[in-house]
Amino acid sequence: MEKTKLKFVLASTSPRRKELIGHLKVPYEIQSLNIPEESDETDPVKFSKQISDMKGEAVFRKLLNENPSGNYFVVSADTIVCLNGKIYGKPADRNEARQILQELSGKNHSVYTAVTINLSLSGQSHKHSFVEETKVTFNTITNALMERYLDTGDSLDKAGAYGIQNGSLTFISRVDGDYSNVVGFPLSRFVIEAESFLKSKIAHEDLWLNLF
Amino acid sequence: MEKTKLKFVLASTSPRRKELIGHLKVPYEIQSLNIPEESDETDPVKFSKQISDMKGEAVFRKLLNENPSGNYFVVSADTIVCLNGKIYGKPADRNEARQILQELSGKNHSVYTAVTINLSLSGQSHKHSFVEETKVTFNTITNALMERYLDTGDSLDKAGAYGIQNGSLTFISRVDGDYSNVVGFPLSRFVIEAESFLKSKIAHEDLWLNLF
Repeated sequence: MEKTKLKFVLASTSPRRKELIGHLKVPYEIQSLNIPEESDETDPVKFSKQISDMKGEAVFRKLLNENPSGNYFVVSADTIVCLNGKIYGKPADRNEARQILQELSGKNHSVYTAVTINLSLSGQSHKHSFVEETKVTFNTITNALMERYLDTGDSLDKAGAYGIQNGSLTFISRVDGDYSNVVGFPLSRFVIEAESFLKSKIAHEDLWLNLF
Repeated sequence: MEKTKLKFVLASTSPRRKELIGHLKVPYEIQSLNIPEESDETDPVKFSKQISDMKGEAVFRKLLNENPSGNYFVVSADTIVCLNGKIYGKPADRNEARQILQELSGKNHSVYTAVTINLSLSGQSHKHSFVEETKVTFNTITNALMERYLDTGDSLDKAGAYGIQNGSLTFISRVDGDYSNVVGFPLSRFVIEAESFLKSKIAHEDLWLNLF
């Protein structure tokens, strides 16, 4: 009996997600469509899940349109920052970045990343989503640290106007929860969720990483 | 009155500490002496502090020996991993790395980084040290993830046989506390401690980052 093989497609152009997925050491390719990251949802879990689902489904449909019998494993994600019920996406410019960081300064907020897996297997489609939440605490950001950080331009393509890997570490005092989730992809939880999801759909696979 | 200027010296060759200190955007140089990272201390706070102090003092003394009237700000650090009273430093080889990771697998441990600041100012010496603790939780590490991670060689130069920035994120489920502390230098706390320490020694400085 021939072994099932899946084509792993990451439906995201984020260099952080690419780096995190790379740690799995499995072959994958990137295909992404430009989906507006907008939703009427006010609940952060539903909001991030809806955007992640839309990103993934667009790529999944395109792949199945090209090859309806293909075995695809399409992974999409969306990361947002939330404080007191307000959802923060990516800032439009340096001024908006400063304003967001001033609102987060001296407080703790939540980072939500939704992950969606779209699987097609022998002509059948399956979907699995989950949302991970991590708490992040900022010290009060002094003007000196704020301008030094804004100077780097690191804010501009990131939800909540900061990337935890770089200069914002001068004012981030605590992380409580999954660190990679704040980077943009909850890798250790994905490992567990993906394994369990694949085991439920493909019988007798002992090492899910070999499916790709 | 001429402004006081300090020469910032990082007494560590760790590329992770170099990157973290770089986020401060102040000029600094690296000078490090080869100090054996050994101590009879069994308490993790005292252990890391003793090693950090030794690293810093060696460089500080050398600098003052060359130029007794120099204004130096010498920063050293030591990072250890501790589980159930056992202190883990860097592994000797891949087999020891595997053994350490197997001991940490499925549990939460503490990472301690001690930081020592040695300051010389107008011929007088001052010292300030602190130790930051962060909790890290590992999922149970499967054989597949373990060997993939060991293959990268990332374990070998790191306390506890892992670097949190890379492939170990496939099995790290939680961080509770300062993230940069786990990387090897508690940057946001350093910002606060250094500012307070310098303000106590140098009067009327409103922006400590401009001292360098």
